[in-house]
Amino acid sequence: MTPEREKVVFDAEMKRYRNGEIWEFEDDLGVSDDSGVLLGLDGGTTSTVCICMPMIPFSHSQLHSLPILARAVAGCSNHNSVGEIAARETIEQVMAEALSKCGSKRSSVRAVCLAVSGVNHPTDQQRILNWLRDIFPNHVKLYVLNDAVAALASGTMGKLHGCVLIAGTGSIAYGFTEDGKEARAAGAGPVLGDWGSGYGIAAQALTAVVRAHDGRGPSTMLTSSILQKLGLSSAEELIGWTYADPSWARIAALVPVVVTCAEAGDEVANKVLLESVQELASSVKAVVQRLGLCGQDGKSAFPIVMVGGVLEAHRGRWDIGQEVVNCISKCFPGVIPIRPKVEPAVGAAWLAWNFFMKEYQRG
Amino acid sequence: MTPEREKVVFDAEMKRYRNGEIWEFEDDLGVSDDSGVLLGLDGGTTSTVCICMPMIPFSHSQLHSLPILARAVAGCSNHNSVGEIAARETIEQVMAEALSKCGSKRSSVRAVCLAVSGVNHPTDQQRILNWLRDIFPNHVKLYVLNDAVAALASGTMGKLHGCVLIAGTGSIAYGFTEDGKEARAAGAGPVLGDWGSGYGIAAQALTAVVRAHDGRGPSTMLTSSILQKLGLSSAEELIGWTYADPSWARIAALVPVVVTCAEAGDEVANKVLLESVQELASSVKAVVQRLGLCGQDGKSAFPIVMVGGVLEAHRGRWDIGQEVVNCISKCFPGVIPIRPKVEPAVGAAWLAWNFFMKEYQRG
Repeated sequence: MTPEREKVVFDAEMKRYRNGEIWEFEDDLGVSDDSGVLLGLDGGTTSTVCICMPMIPFSHSQLHSLPILARAVAGCSNHNSVGEIAARETIEQVMAEALSKCGSKRSSVRAVCLAVSGVNHPTDQQRILNWLRDIFPNHVKLYVLNDAVAALASGTMGKLHGCVLIAGTGSIAYGFTEDGKEARAAGAGPVLGDWGSGYGIAAQALTAVVRAHDGRGPSTMLTSSILQKLGLSSAEELIGWTYADPSWARIAALVPVVVTCAEAGDEVANKVLLESVQELASSVKAVVQRLGLCGQDGKSAFPIVMVGGVLEAHRGRWDIGQEVVNCISKCFPGVIPIRPKVEPAVGAAWLAWNFFMKEYQRG
Repeated sequence: MTPEREKVVFDAEMKRYRNGEIWEFEDDLGVSDDSGVLLGLDGGTTSTVCICMPMIPFSHSQLHSLPILARAVAGCSNHNSVGEIAARETIEQVMAEALSKCGSKRSSVRAVCLAVSGVNHPTDQQRILNWLRDIFPNHVKLYVLNDAVAALASGTMGKLHGCVLIAGTGSIAYGFTEDGKEARAAGAGPVLGDWGSGYGIAAQALTAVVRAHDGRGPSTMLTSSILQKLGLSSAEELIGWTYADPSWARIAALVPVVVTCAEAGDEVANKVLLESVQELASSVKAVVQRLGLCGQDGKSAFPIVMVGGVLEAHRGRWDIGQEVVNCISKCFPGVIPIRPKVEPAVGAAWLAWNFFMKEYQRG
């Protein structure tokens, strides 16, 4: 056996060993009750949350009162960021943890809605469905969506209508019409110009520091603030720091430093945030226009659900989310901003229930 | 032993096994002649070249006639791009291959000049020197530099004076004054805004395709040209393609498509190239200004060595290198563009000879 082949076998064995362990808790459970449960999973570039809810057949209007049986949290599950194998492990792990916490087996699950970032094409969806199929018994209904859909559902109680803007580590705008048309913009990750995201803001700020150091750009308060935050002593050290770890979330964690500098009057930081607002607003506008959510006169009311750390209200003067809304409402005065009270994983669980009930009613 | 620990031991054994193999050829060589050899290595983000030259103690003016004994080529050795272990393996491998080709042992080596991209800080330099020290006998003089320095030397016959602009997969401007001052700009990789590089050009072009698809930007010929080049059928598939492999060189390989579209009159492609020219020129200007290479009146003559695929003359109308020179000469009319006739690895070997002779003369 060549060393390369040995390594493949070794890795495969390690994986099997781990996955057996993931579901071990099921052996200790007795006969499960038969009312059944739902799993809603929100997998982002920073963290992954899985919610377990009871499966009770009641009407849509009561959905918001569905109790949460268990909640589990894990790290990044965007396959474009951490790779397919790591993403899969994280998702399987966090689902097992949620079920284990409420003492349910996989056989009690009625439906799973996996809303994960990095699902950009039907082939992504199919690949994830295939390995999800191996984990659950045949009767379990499986739905795989982009995480943006769950975020929208978290603000609309599971109804797919309007536009959602997510700006956390990554950013994306996703919209649905009531008759089922959908459209998206941005969400293509940092290489493909996702500049409104937390990663985009932080990368632009880091770039500004390097430019100031090189003599290619104006000096900025970002230099001392970012170096201090990272415990580095010179701008040259930023290069080593940046490439030491390819995690997008690690870069995006610098956003609060940029906001603080902008609030303190730094022009360079201010410009980075203004550009991010323009980027985010232009993504929403593209979706609204393509779907005609604003009506023929451009003034119809439609909801925009705002999700993610970048859009959360800050105490200081600089509120990125509010600036984006101001920018959008200049074009579309009917925009109704919604900041959801529940997290996207709950939106995913609502969607699982919705999709399941539709299939059930159909036949 | 835990599976993690087992993996560490296994990897270490694999490494020892491979490295033993690298130098096996030395056992088959007889007693080596004592005139000695020099190694010059140019390690970029796309490829790594190692040159072996004879060590003959003659004067500086004759340096350009140094014959090449052997040349070996390998892949990327930028530790920021492929990681420390892979970079190290590649460098050790390619040096062994060059020595093996001319039938020399490590004991015949007098000096090694390793010019590798990703060396941005004295700590990078020291880390590489440390493991290089383990490979060669104690008498061998070792020099580790940023690859830009070798590129400059390839255009100035080993003299460190003037500015070099490299634009291949990455880009950097590096300059030296005759009294030993140095300065650099850009070269901080894609996250830190290296937008004039081949990677930068291609990433901007890919971004333009995604924006056109989303409805956030004008439609462009880049869409059909890039999709055809990559054998993809839709812009959504670009996301999967982009993140399937994190190699910067793979993205940068799309530059010729962008040039072709710009030559065919595509406005979006044209804008991407014009922005790259501005970026590259601004890096050079920052270095020239900081070092005062242009003299007090801004009109003194100084060489600018142009290296890398992006700057090579194209047959069509769009010559990025020429545009950059035009842009620089508006500020600094004394600029003398040089397109080197030898490759940077030869520049590295010249530097090894230069540094060695200086140390020899000093003591």
